[in-house]
Amino acid sequence: MAGEVDPQMWRLGADETVPRLLHTMLRVSDFDASLRFYRDTLGMTVFERFDVPSRRASGMFLGFGDPRSPMLELTQRWDAEGYTHGDAYGHVAIGVADLVALCDRIAEAGCAVVESPAHVVESGPLVAFVKDPDGFVVELVQLQRD
Amino acid sequence: MAGEVDPQMWRLGADETVPRLLHTMLRVSDFDASLRFYRDTLGMTVFERFDVPSRRASGMFLGFGDPRSPMLELTQRWDAEGYTHGDAYGHVAIGVADLVALCDRIAEAGCAVVESPAHVVESGPLVAFVKDPDGFVVELVQLQRD
Repeated sequence: MAGEVDPQMWRLGADETVPRLLHTMLRVSDFDASLRFYRDTLGMTVFERFDVPSRRASGMFLGFGDPRSPMLELTQRWDAEGYTHGDAYGHVAIGVADLVALCDRIAEAGCAVVESPAHVVESGPLVAFVKDPDGFVVELVQLQRD
Repeated sequence: MAGEVDPQMWRLGADETVPRLLHTMLRVSDFDASLRFYRDTLGMTVFERFDVPSRRASGMFLGFGDPRSPMLELTQRWDAEGYTHGDAYGHVAIGVADLVALCDRIAEAGCAVVESPAHVVESGPLVAFVKDPDGFVVELVQLQRD
């Protein structure tokens, strides 16, 4: 934990003139478990960890490659006992280089592969659906290689 | 509605070598209401609408600018009566050019401004929290202009 938010993180659009998606925020119960999934298994980079005392919450931003690209924000409320999942929220989708091998690693890490790699749409790529340690569904899409 | 998914939409990562976030999917109850909010008020572009008969669902991809940038996917299940919202999912955050004016337009359009523009972090930008027609929270972040 590194104190208040680094304002640089809020200025990702500093030189831009059009709106863009900045991040998707999910509340999680155990940062260590989230890090094993999103960082160690999926390969995301933690760009920042921060506390917001006024909201009694801590968070981290994770993403791939360029820190200006859209990110996942994971949050923990200091006083939460747990969170409930409705069925309105769907998933975050991530394009990956080797879907089959990644799903094997996810299963080995003890996370659920809800739908194994398959073509949901006949002419489309392989996609799989997995669950993170909090039960959030993540869609994984095979990046085309030719 | 335009039949099955255009496979082009699945190939956004065709020439890429590193993983990236592709989209965030939310289930909504009324596409027309969603379009008034995300397209007409927030200014997003609808890049594709599609049906997936095998899943008895329809969807659309919306985003800003480049169709290769990460998007929002809105889905309707053909047989759903409605959806439930837990408190685990947080929000999508969007950087915008004129936050105050946009919040005024959102209120005029009949949507809830949950938190008016304010500095959540002292050294950070103005941020506001609004709700889309389905009750999903959207964080709006003022892009820096200097």
